[in-house]
Amino acid sequence: MRNNRASVSSDRAPVAGNGLLDRRLFLSAGAAALGSALPSKADELPIEPWMKLPGSPFVGYGQPSKFESKVARTFASLPGTTGTGAARTPHHLLDGMITPNGVHFERSHSGIPDIDPETHRLLIHGLVKRPLVFTLESLGRYPRESRVAFLECGGNGQLLYQKEPAPVGVQAIHGLVSCAEWTGVKLAVLLQEAGVDPKAKWILAEGADAAGMSRSIPVAETMDEALIALYQNGERIRPSNGYPMRLLLPGYEGNMNVKWLRRIKLTEGPTMTKDETSKYTITLPDGKSLQFVLPQEGKSVITQPSPGLSMKGPGLYEISGLAWSGYGRVTKVEVSADGGKSWALAALQPPVLSKALTRFRMPWRWNGGPAVLQSRAFDESGMFQPTRAQFVALRGQTSKPPAVTDFPSQHFNAITSWGVNAQGGVRHVYA
Amino acid sequence: MRNNRASVSSDRAPVAGNGLLDRRLFLSAGAAALGSALPSKADELPIEPWMKLPGSPFVGYGQPSKFESKVARTFASLPGTTGTGAARTPHHLLDGMITPNGVHFERSHSGIPDIDPETHRLLIHGLVKRPLVFTLESLGRYPRESRVAFLECGGNGQLLYQKEPAPVGVQAIHGLVSCAEWTGVKLAVLLQEAGVDPKAKWILAEGADAAGMSRSIPVAETMDEALIALYQNGERIRPSNGYPMRLLLPGYEGNMNVKWLRRIKLTEGPTMTKDETSKYTITLPDGKSLQFVLPQEGKSVITQPSPGLSMKGPGLYEISGLAWSGYGRVTKVEVSADGGKSWALAALQPPVLSKALTRFRMPWRWNGGPAVLQSRAFDESGMFQPTRAQFVALRGQTSKPPAVTDFPSQHFNAITSWGVNAQGGVRHVYA
Repeated sequence: MRNNRASVSSDRAPVAGNGLLDRRLFLSAGAAALGSALPSKADELPIEPWMKLPGSPFVGYGQPSKFESKVARTFASLPGTTGTGAARTPHHLLDGMITPNGVHFERSHSGIPDIDPETHRLLIHGLVKRPLVFTLESLGRYPRESRVAFLECGGNGQLLYQKEPAPVGVQAIHGLVSCAEWTGVKLAVLLQEAGVDPKAKWILAEGADAAGMSRSIPVAETMDEALIALYQNGERIRPSNGYPMRLLLPGYEGNMNVKWLRRIKLTEGPTMTKDETSKYTITLPDGKSLQFVLPQEGKSVITQPSPGLSMKGPGLYEISGLAWSGYGRVTKVEVSADGGKSWALAALQPPVLSKALTRFRMPWRWNGGPAVLQSRAFDESGMFQPTRAQFVALRGQTSKPPAVTDFPSQHFNAITSWGVNAQGGVRHVYA
Repeated sequence: MRNNRASVSSDRAPVAGNGLLDRRLFLSAGAAALGSALPSKADELPIEPWMKLPGSPFVGYGQPSKFESKVARTFASLPGTTGTGAARTPHHLLDGMITPNGVHFERSHSGIPDIDPETHRLLIHGLVKRPLVFTLESLGRYPRESRVAFLECGGNGQLLYQKEPAPVGVQAIHGLVSCAEWTGVKLAVLLQEAGVDPKAKWILAEGADAAGMSRSIPVAETMDEALIALYQNGERIRPSNGYPMRLLLPGYEGNMNVKWLRRIKLTEGPTMTKDETSKYTITLPDGKSLQFVLPQEGKSVITQPSPGLSMKGPGLYEISGLAWSGYGRVTKVEVSADGGKSWALAALQPPVLSKALTRFRMPWRWNGGPAVLQSRAFDESGMFQPTRAQFVALRGQTSKPPAVTDFPSQHFNAITSWGVNAQGGVRHVYA
């Protein structure tokens, strides 16, 4: 029976070029054998040292295994201050749709404030009938909602603007997106209690960090989905994500989801804060800038395999990755193993939720030859990811690594490509 | 306009006795005012100390705020060994459906083994054509699936068997259930590769802890949903939850989801291990025991308000809690504020997923008088929670706090009741 394992059944018929296979491969009887397990002669395994002594005791708040220390955010702080910059999620080492709280990405403008929740206040003021102040306790009286939503920095993917492919992987390129279950109070309920003046068309949301990070958002855009988020994956929001409360605007540019939220001011027009004029605009090749581009565009990236993970010889693999769109649900993801010459439909892991990360999966038989792996996401608004060439023709590119304040740096959403060489190495390429 | 806040609109019409209100209260224009915010005279808040200095820098793996140290598992170890017992999730301090990995409940029989993932092996043997050994790396070649699922110890809720209501809260009574997004390889795919002998009707699953904790499960029950789980809420499974791999049998008695999984042996019948004969049976009043009761029954509990949380004066509150069933989806949850005399339909937080915790919510205007809060879950199998009196009439009760090996201790699924007194105190009662 063993030689069956090398046979090619009809379930292994390719669905696109260079080895992409039908997912039923793994689901149908008799066709699953990947042959990656070792045949066992022994009827028992040796007794490992950790079975010979009682293990460690309970702790109140648990941590990952010491063997997982590489599962960590990478970050760079700008000189002269602390905590100004970004810390990136290691998506190549994760699976599923939830980002664990310990490695949720972070973009901070003056470090993480150590806020005492007893003294923190949220003020709603400006063009309202009744200015109101909320304590954490008074917010706790209001009805709550939970939703799974991604957050993405407007600058995520900015390395792809660079003319030559940066020799880095998922974490450096796409590590500024994460996904959690957020729970909080609808902003609309609080605005209703304050009584919004009909002249008020915008809000100013301001954080309690030393940067006073603040953004303007049209009121109308906040009425359906905006939450004052208090919980992240079940527990209170982490300090790096806005403890004790942040604005959550599902699908919208990350920094509009103001952390450490201390006030919302109702205004007639946008406030034009330093954060929305010096950064977070889409500067076009003609020098004009698009401002207040709220939703993050449809996007995807293959996380396994990807740079830093190597292929261990020809054979069957699962290609897996993440797709998301600030415009709603991901409707399909296509994968290519031949640099975009042919495409196959990936399986989407249910539940597929609006404005949440969506895990996609695709079986692949790597023949040991060169391959270029790509994915492209389609969303319910009809948007799909362009090629990099199409994208930079419209938005331009840079000859050096872009910084957040550079032109262009924001809202890159074209296809990411990983090249696989004959040794099984995986690197970032343009294709 | 301020006196509007005390008025009763049609949206505030009661939907059941003692103040349960229509959820549209919080969604309709003009009716939201809870009046729990403070009117603000000031146009600005004072500048807090954490706005005057840069905050703390980035870290690779983040932690909760120091102000949240009470959000921790409680546990008791039996004397003479380490880590034998259980650590319980503080559901009264959480919200949403996901349990953060740091406080996922744990039941261990000889502590937490410190397993090196490089040397750990999974053996599939017994009545198979091809005994196989898997390393963590070889398992990584197989296709994965993700799903949100609760895990619940068979002994969760056992304090409710006690004749007098234990003076404790959600964590002590219902802290042995948690919920996570799990990702892993379908067991059916691995069994297919090993080639199961038709005579094999059961599996033995054994853990690599010092207790060699092991359970028997019918093969047929594992084919649809069982996973070799590798990831928990995106990251590798925590040591306390089975690092580097555990069996996941969604909906089934917690300890069948064998942690630190080292082998699966295909057998003709159940192995009758020490763990399934000395514990984890349902002993009936006539002395007979039900064995191999796989699914956890439909259940629910109100988490806010609950003992340990007090009410701050009459007014509007949100009653919130968790419901779940090992038989599939929760179809509805009803809430009572008058000890079961009248019931109202709670809102279920989408997505409502099969065999996952489901958050329910219900608005309540507490009039300051005594109240008895209850919830009851209904699932898609048609099961719903009985009253405690109905349940103990069939299963019996104990005159002292039950232990895991006592009669009766397992699979308690009747209604839990919280009494509210005029001072706003909340305590466990029978009603």
